Amino acid sequence: MKILGVDPGYGRVGFGVVDRRGGVLVPLRHGVIETSAKLDLPARLKQVHDSVAALIESDEPDCLATERLLFAANRTTGIGVASALGVVLLAAAERSVPWTEYTPPQVKLAVTGSGRAAKSQVQFMVTRLLRLQECPKPDDVADALAVAICHALRAGIPTP
Amino acid sequence: MKILGVDPGYGRVGFGVVDRRGGVLVPLRHGVIETSAKLDLPARLKQVHDSVAALIESDEPDCLATERLLFAANRTTGIGVASALGVVLLAAAERSVPWTEYTPPQVKLAVTGSGRAAKSQVQFMVTRLLRLQECPKPDDVADALAVAICHALRAGIPTP
Repeated sequence: MKILGVDPGYGRVGFGVVDRRGGVLVPLRHGVIETSAKLDLPARLKQVHDSVAALIESDEPDCLATERLLFAANRTTGIGVASALGVVLLAAAERSVPWTEYTPPQVKLAVTGSGRAAKSQVQFMVTRLLRLQECPKPDDVADALAVAICHALRAGIPTP
Repeated sequence: MKILGVDPGYGRVGFGVVDRRGGVLVPLRHGVIETSAKLDLPARLKQVHDSVAALIESDEPDCLATERLLFAANRTTGIGVASALGVVLLAAAERSVPWTEYTPPQVKLAVTGSGRAAKSQVQFMVTRLLRLQECPKPDDVADALAVAICHALRAGIPTP
């Protein structure tokens, strides 16, 4: 089962495709989609949508997982991020890819064993569980891989 | 100039197309797009996107206007509404329709002369400015027409 994890944004979208093969999690592809700050919000959302749609088209994930958005810090940015989530979900719906959402504590708990783990612990475990040489950068990529791993593990997959 | 005003949502989207002909505002079409609560969020967003895209295709507006979202009341609903805004903006970007956003006080001021007008005053003036027999229902439609009127009036159009 191939899981696409996405960390949405209108400026930067982290993504990671993780394949669950038996009891092992295999990282197939991960990276970041960036949009130009010179573009207005609709144009940036179009880039996000079209890039995620192309990713779904090429990698054919069986499901999409995202982390639930929280809006404590910055409401204006939050609206832009939530609008980016909208076009990511649209890209999934256009290809009938089912979507699951997890809260930040659910992701932390699944990846590290603690719902209150520090970001550095999550990144350490993402690197270890996927047998990567180093933690993917920027943070958006590690976050996207973390939610993909969360979906794989919560679906009852033993850790490697 | 034809202005498409939209009041976004994932359950209900109000829309209104207003044509500015000389100094007069002519309501061309208004109504509401509704999605089924039985569908999940991505499927509802797809309905919103496809309906707004069809509206833009058929009515060929020159611009899109929306009211800035505020998230005081309900954060969870707010994320859904902002994700719906995302797919509405995407539909506009796909047809190169430019977008303008106004704050709620800007809309109230343009339509009623007071940035702190009550909703009933806004609805009264929407009905009057567009020479409608009665105020369009539900409120989402009147809200969409109000922001369309705001864009027309702020573009320097004399009131009728």
